[in-house]
Amino acid sequence: MAALPVLPLAVSLGDPAGIGPEVVAKCWDNRSAFGLPPFVAIGDPRSITAVWDGPLEIIEDPRQADSAFDVGLPLFQMTAAQADVPGQPTVAGAHCSLDALELAVGLARSGSVSAVITGPVSKEQLYSIGFTHPGQTEFVAERCGISSSNVAMMLAGPTLRTVPVTTHLPFTQVAEQLSTSLIESRARTVLRGLQRNFGIAEPRLAISGLNPHAGEGGMLGREEIELIEPAIAALRAEGWRVSGPHPADTMFHEAARASYDAALCMYHDQALIPLKALHFYDGVNTTLGLPIIRTAPDHGTAFDIAGQDRADPRPMAAAIRMAAECGAFRAQTA
Amino acid sequence: MAALPVLPLAVSLGDPAGIGPEVVAKCWDNRSAFGLPPFVAIGDPRSITAVWDGPLEIIEDPRQADSAFDVGLPLFQMTAAQADVPGQPTVAGAHCSLDALELAVGLARSGSVSAVITGPVSKEQLYSIGFTHPGQTEFVAERCGISSSNVAMMLAGPTLRTVPVTTHLPFTQVAEQLSTSLIESRARTVLRGLQRNFGIAEPRLAISGLNPHAGEGGMLGREEIELIEPAIAALRAEGWRVSGPHPADTMFHEAARASYDAALCMYHDQALIPLKALHFYDGVNTTLGLPIIRTAPDHGTAFDIAGQDRADPRPMAAAIRMAAECGAFRAQTA
Repeated sequence: MAALPVLPLAVSLGDPAGIGPEVVAKCWDNRSAFGLPPFVAIGDPRSITAVWDGPLEIIEDPRQADSAFDVGLPLFQMTAAQADVPGQPTVAGAHCSLDALELAVGLARSGSVSAVITGPVSKEQLYSIGFTHPGQTEFVAERCGISSSNVAMMLAGPTLRTVPVTTHLPFTQVAEQLSTSLIESRARTVLRGLQRNFGIAEPRLAISGLNPHAGEGGMLGREEIELIEPAIAALRAEGWRVSGPHPADTMFHEAARASYDAALCMYHDQALIPLKALHFYDGVNTTLGLPIIRTAPDHGTAFDIAGQDRADPRPMAAAIRMAAECGAFRAQTA
Repeated sequence: MAALPVLPLAVSLGDPAGIGPEVVAKCWDNRSAFGLPPFVAIGDPRSITAVWDGPLEIIEDPRQADSAFDVGLPLFQMTAAQADVPGQPTVAGAHCSLDALELAVGLARSGSVSAVITGPVSKEQLYSIGFTHPGQTEFVAERCGISSSNVAMMLAGPTLRTVPVTTHLPFTQVAEQLSTSLIESRARTVLRGLQRNFGIAEPRLAISGLNPHAGEGGMLGREEIELIEPAIAALRAEGWRVSGPHPADTMFHEAARASYDAALCMYHDQALIPLKALHFYDGVNTTLGLPIIRTAPDHGTAFDIAGQDRADPRPMAAAIRMAAECGAFRAQTA
């Protein structure tokens, strides 16, 4: 079997006034220590030179990234209408971040890069230019021709992967949004994603309850009996290795985590509390259910510390590393 | 100043058919390794001899515990109407567990022991003999003449302490049970408990939001604005060091935990998920707001493994150690 050609990764810088450019540049600085393969950044070169003195290598073809990576940070130019000041987001910067995201996705769709890593954008700024998606995840899904209801947001750290069934909803709307079909659909997306992107042939999924003690047999709530158990039964009937509903508070200690490959949780904090308690600096947000690999660091634009050389590049490095690993699994099974 | 007399601790064995007797006996076995001070067990001696070959020292006065502790496990006899088989709970055993609990609390109230550690009981069995409290916490509060609404359940591990404002409720009832006055009242109980039982003169309390991202300015729910922020303002006006409402998912990483002495959470899983993710084997349940010190291991009767020499004594050891520490703080400030 011939060796597969190794494609570079594409990293969109996110909002030029945020910490995206800084953490991407720091990842190139520390590429050996962080164990990072060649990647090409996409965005405005001025957003990088404003916060970093290192060498930029402007390239025009992803195939140049590999050799350029030894000399400087490879960059696809995506020049904004004006240069942003770190910490001061503008409409021009929002346009630029969106164009960079779109190009990164296009390169992945066309097979020119092996995966996309997305830097943090400002939703407020994007909304002001007519962006109608809740976040980058839904935009990427649409650009890939996938309904955003068929993708899943996974948070993944070295010892835990979690996926919330419902995401950014008020607490009081969680129970009414949950349904057996939604739980099943999310579970299938996660199970297939573990197979395709993480190379796990027979993934084990642990599904949480909604109520304390998973409802304690109906005494503390009936969603487990009425919604979650039927979903688990249906998934098992399809041959998937699914367990639960588990009391959420006893799912995340070390021995419990070893018993599954991912935890499907009912709501945002149920999934994100344990992930961030354990993996605040090395947790990665990745979208499952897409034809491409997409990861992102699990933080925002942090405008308040942009341009102060204070941003921690470890989450971005973890996102780049995971994208490379998932890209390698995909290439093996393609 | 004369040295204070060191009183023993009282450990109720809990249900005689559960793992309580086994873990208490194992704590005596490992008293040096676990760093445990003298304690006296209270319960049926047959529940211990059924699972343990070590020496029992039957005593009748707590003052004998100190010297007896070097020879064997000191025990106050509380004989059940019949001897239970491990793993097979009975009504007689439930009566015995309740009598032991009551004696332990009485000894603490009268100043004969410095603290109470309660072994796990079976609520199902207790309900069948007419017990009407939700759990041991409420029973202990009543025996101390305190309304159970004025005590707080704290889960405490080496790097994190959490307290849920609401406890064993269905998920959909959490938001309606929350109120500004309940949050304030729980917060005061916790703050005073940190002063009295943990020796923290100016305790720092971090209060969580209810919604994802603590409501994101009202976009993802309004409980933060309408209920939680007014409680925080009132507590600050009283001079307490209180912060929040914090997004629950970013409250529990290492750096965040270092910024407070306890986290007040809105519901059961919000408090217990991070605690058990980080401190599954050394988390302790302790009741604040009582005139006495009361701790408990954070596990149940585990009838399914009782009598098989499989029970882990580390949580009970952690509960005994914490009771001793809290008792020492109380003695210093009494």
